[in-house]
Amino acid sequence: MDQKVFETLQALFYPTNAAVVGASTNPAKLGFQALLALKTGGMAGKVFPISPSLKGRTVLDMPGYGAIEDIPEPAQLFVLAVPHDRIEGALISAAKKGAKGAVIFAGGFREVGEDGAALQSRIKQTADRLGVKIVGPNCVGALNLPYGLNATFGSPLSQMKRGRVSLVSQSGGTGSAILTTMMDNNVGVSKFVSIGNRVNLDFPELVQYLAEDKDTDVICLFIEGMDDGRAFLAAARQASKKKPIIAYQAGFTEATRRLALSHTGSMSASREIYAAAYRQAGVLFVSDYEELVDTAKAVSMLPQINGTGVAIFTHTAGPALIVAQTAEEAGGTLPDFTADHKEKIVGFAPQFTVPTNPLDMFAHAWFDTSMYLKAAELALSQPDIHLACACYSSGIDVGIRFPAAEFAAIAKKYNKPALACLMATHGGNGAVELSEADDAGTPTFNSPHKAGKTIANLIRLWRMRQGMG
Amino acid sequence: MDQKVFETLQALFYPTNAAVVGASTNPAKLGFQALLALKTGGMAGKVFPISPSLKGRTVLDMPGYGAIEDIPEPAQLFVLAVPHDRIEGALISAAKKGAKGAVIFAGGFREVGEDGAALQSRIKQTADRLGVKIVGPNCVGALNLPYGLNATFGSPLSQMKRGRVSLVSQSGGTGSAILTTMMDNNVGVSKFVSIGNRVNLDFPELVQYLAEDKDTDVICLFIEGMDDGRAFLAAARQASKKKPIIAYQAGFTEATRRLALSHTGSMSASREIYAAAYRQAGVLFVSDYEELVDTAKAVSMLPQINGTGVAIFTHTAGPALIVAQTAEEAGGTLPDFTADHKEKIVGFAPQFTVPTNPLDMFAHAWFDTSMYLKAAELALSQPDIHLACACYSSGIDVGIRFPAAEFAAIAKKYNKPALACLMATHGGNGAVELSEADDAGTPTFNSPHKAGKTIANLIRLWRMRQGMG
Repeated sequence: MDQKVFETLQALFYPTNAAVVGASTNPAKLGFQALLALKTGGMAGKVFPISPSLKGRTVLDMPGYGAIEDIPEPAQLFVLAVPHDRIEGALISAAKKGAKGAVIFAGGFREVGEDGAALQSRIKQTADRLGVKIVGPNCVGALNLPYGLNATFGSPLSQMKRGRVSLVSQSGGTGSAILTTMMDNNVGVSKFVSIGNRVNLDFPELVQYLAEDKDTDVICLFIEGMDDGRAFLAAARQASKKKPIIAYQAGFTEATRRLALSHTGSMSASREIYAAAYRQAGVLFVSDYEELVDTAKAVSMLPQINGTGVAIFTHTAGPALIVAQTAEEAGGTLPDFTADHKEKIVGFAPQFTVPTNPLDMFAHAWFDTSMYLKAAELALSQPDIHLACACYSSGIDVGIRFPAAEFAAIAKKYNKPALACLMATHGGNGAVELSEADDAGTPTFNSPHKAGKTIANLIRLWRMRQGMG
Repeated sequence: MDQKVFETLQALFYPTNAAVVGASTNPAKLGFQALLALKTGGMAGKVFPISPSLKGRTVLDMPGYGAIEDIPEPAQLFVLAVPHDRIEGALISAAKKGAKGAVIFAGGFREVGEDGAALQSRIKQTADRLGVKIVGPNCVGALNLPYGLNATFGSPLSQMKRGRVSLVSQSGGTGSAILTTMMDNNVGVSKFVSIGNRVNLDFPELVQYLAEDKDTDVICLFIEGMDDGRAFLAAARQASKKKPIIAYQAGFTEATRRLALSHTGSMSASREIYAAAYRQAGVLFVSDYEELVDTAKAVSMLPQINGTGVAIFTHTAGPALIVAQTAEEAGGTLPDFTADHKEKIVGFAPQFTVPTNPLDMFAHAWFDTSMYLKAAELALSQPDIHLACACYSSGIDVGIRFPAAEFAAIAKKYNKPALACLMATHGGNGAVELSEADDAGTPTFNSPHKAGKTIANLIRLWRMRQGMG
């Protein structure tokens, strides 16, 4: 991408210092919540609270400043927690203080009609002239967790797991919901951008930027409609050669197009048109955001899959059937174990075990989880098996744990992906058990359908890398 | 259904007394866990622990008996926690003590080959001759929560919410996983049957029975393959006229057919063949068990929908788009509000509100949730609007609550279904908030895709009732 734009975006996501314009001491105000978010984010640089009422006062242990001109050092990122009619003036002052990026929460632009569209167009001209990239307006802000940047008004987002999955969302509400789902599923997040009305920062630049970003391994997108589909597809085609891109989109049907138009002012085509275009650009198109989150989690934790061969191990055949079926419906295959491996399986597995793939080792494997490890070791040593999946049920309050660390270690030895489905994990204990398995290196899903869908998507990504669409 | 079979199944699900053969004082044994489950279930009748080692002893505060012949009163249900080679003898003795139903956990029958198949066939002859209906073998048992019957080996299942959703599952593992998912989603459960190898109790009888059961409003099925598809479809065609039937099925692909065969010995056809046949029989066919659970929850809590018209209210447009799109893709429509209602909406909604459906009332409605109620009142009074959906985000730790009880009350007044999507509800607080909304009478889902799929399925059920397939 253009080097200058890259550097501008670097300054936006890794600002030396940051400022909140419209900061407040009143917790009911966005200007307070935005300040709290920046502070809890913990970035290395300084944070300057700015508001006429804060001159000479302290807020959240930080000295306040009466005006942008008064801050003692330059700041690269300005969070503008002021209404739409005060944005332009703030941008001009901020640019003089070193602004490269600005976050605009306020609505009142293109989404509200002609007057708003005219204002947005003026803001764009000003920002472009000043060399400032704008997140928003009409958005919930941006995150760069590896740097400790929380430029939203949601301080709890500072507690998200740091990681290597980045998300660009057209809708702030859906973006927040996806982040929460990532939080609930132990997905480590790098950058998040709520692009809102997209004054001069849109999917194409962000996809290019994230493709080059050293802190991002997977690019996730929530799209409602495109102003310039061609530019996005061109950017995605290049970016997807470097990193997986996963997209979820809404707004295909008539009523949703109506709302999308009044919402962020964008237009939309049919699902089929998008799906085909995205596939050609190497973008994995998913059906709901739960699937986006699950797939991003697996992709960010695992080596790439290098084929379609899946081995599934279980102590409970029914759920393994669901995993197998879901993977097979996306082109996955379940290769037979070799004659030698079959013999070995019969050697350690319980009586009546049929050494097929999926491999059901009955309740015995529930008690003696080492059977999973023995099976994985054999399966992953086969050249035609490219991924291992354990389909396990912890039972409730029983105290048996799936050996997630050992399972991950075996897969690592063969440089192949391995994941798990862990069911019947009711309530708090189940969530703890799942997150422990994740932390041990085996991405784990709480239903066979989710595990199967994730495997299916790893295979679809592989097929796209092979040019098989 | 045949009156004698109905009465036999009544005795199985509502036994005056119950017994555990193979009971044990050792918590590592199924015979102990089965006893604990029956005890924690809390059914009114007596529970008799039976085992040679228990003669004259007490287990879990219950007097033990050395043999089936020794129990002091008849029992209608016998839980047989003994290996496959002791089943036949136990059945004969149990029948003399009044058995109408027996639960067999053990494997070692049809699923392990010819010898097992022969044994299963002998058991079937014996049971049929004695007039005993068998749950299993190779299963996890049965529940009838409204009666306090827990005839599984999972005592935590006794704590499930009592309700009106019944589930028949061919796989014990998947059945348990579905129950756990129901537990996590506040679904009130009535009966559960893990049918395993289906000696003389299979989908057709159970569907007929549940259609007549006064404690069941919704029949859920997890199917891996059918021995007698024709009998099932005939039963389902009748039953679906009385109650909604929702089915999820696995085992369509090659490898899964292989496993299903070795698992419970059943055969399987293609997804398309089943889907078409089920639709004709009035059975709603869903794509994963999460969808089964969500749909059952809504159906069991709400009046039937009487058309395709959906109204959606939100303070965050992006997620509302997802709900709308998912509903529309199943034939849902989003009728316009009347001119009069548009005027009223503009009257109470914030500046810039466009009074379309879906209706976005911006962050104002997040703070002032009464806007949702005003909008619902107007929308549901329109004859062309048949369902209301609120798409709400609680934010994190903010303390604002969606008015679920008031929302449900408005819908009740119009005898129309209303549900909600409640996002960004991270961790424990979110789960509490969701379950409070459920308890207040508004079935609530934690993602817009789930809410949308549920609406879609209510509409699909309506279409089937109209003979529109």
